[in-house]
Amino acid sequence: MKLYDMTLSGNCYKVRLFLGLIGQAAELVPVDLRNGEQRQPAFLAINPRGQVPFLEDGEVRMADSQAILVYLARRYADSSWYSDDAVTEARIVSWLSFAANEMQHGPATARVGRLFGRPIDEALANSRALAAMSLLEQQLAEHDWLAQTPTPTIADVAVYPYAALAGEGGIDLAPYPAVRAWCSRIGQLPGYLGMPGLE
Amino acid sequence: MKLYDMTLSGNCYKVRLFLGLIGQAAELVPVDLRNGEQRQPAFLAINPRGQVPFLEDGEVRMADSQAILVYLARRYADSSWYSDDAVTEARIVSWLSFAANEMQHGPATARVGRLFGRPIDEALANSRALAAMSLLEQQLAEHDWLAQTPTPTIADVAVYPYAALAGEGGIDLAPYPAVRAWCSRIGQLPGYLGMPGLE
Repeated sequence: MKLYDMTLSGNCYKVRLFLGLIGQAAELVPVDLRNGEQRQPAFLAINPRGQVPFLEDGEVRMADSQAILVYLARRYADSSWYSDDAVTEARIVSWLSFAANEMQHGPATARVGRLFGRPIDEALANSRALAAMSLLEQQLAEHDWLAQTPTPTIADVAVYPYAALAGEGGIDLAPYPAVRAWCSRIGQLPGYLGMPGLE
Repeated sequence: MKLYDMTLSGNCYKVRLFLGLIGQAAELVPVDLRNGEQRQPAFLAINPRGQVPFLEDGEVRMADSQAILVYLARRYADSSWYSDDAVTEARIVSWLSFAANEMQHGPATARVGRLFGRPIDEALANSRALAAMSLLEQQLAEHDWLAQTPTPTIADVAVYPYAALAGEGGIDLAPYPAVRAWCSRIGQLPGYLGMPGLE
């Protein structure tokens, strides 16, 4: 298994983290996004969309961090990570969309603005980040894990990175005690891996 | 089964459409979004997030149109609508995120701006709509169905409404022949239901 990767990308990190949690190894191939390696012909021949993370596993080629989590969970993980009970699975998919949408346009965008100096609408990213964090806080004040399961699922893995890294985008985690407690729970899972920017 | 619904909402329509395609009946309960019924205590007691579509099925309560599709597919539909093959399922989830993200911030936002006069950043919604439509066109030029399956899946159902309704947001479908052909294929499926604004 080969993961085209960038250390500081939260979306790449969520794949590395999940591989750690399920005890699967992958060869990491760093892609130098800062110097535009993802737009060079050599990388576009691998992934025409020019994005990381990108997974190669035998004949399988998979882009999109949320999709990669689903793939890895179904193929390699204990079913507790991605139940196929109709209600639980629907809840998980809803949080995967939340990761791709609210988290991406909120905390993740605020972070790339600050950390990589990319031009962003800072006020918009901030207000979206606060809305996303409030929603998370609300859910996690009532449930240990996002999909309301007894153990973590890929929903938690998908949402965790940009929540935990929110401080790098200027979002103070102090008003979100339930989010911080959930981050600690994740940090204590067997096989957990961190990344730069996380305590 | 009870669906809290609004006729002109593309997200409600995708649930009604899927119910039609799988031959399931639900009682439709109209919620008057234009007059703010979704923010009234009576509806907030049903769905605290104040959104439609919202599904009640026995003990199950489910918000989020994509999540509802997953739930209905797993519980009531032929598995071809939502395969649990790892690769196919990952592809489907990726398109569900695309529906929740790119389609929502693109064509759907352009449409609510025009149709309901909501204040939106029109230039941004338009550029996102065009990017989303191009990506769809690219995929559908090569595959009959979004998840590259021999028959349609909930990915198609999730993305279809705001693609087919793009004209209402001022997005011309002429440059997207593969998208138009796919819309026709969907329109010919047994059990298909239309909505106002679709030909």
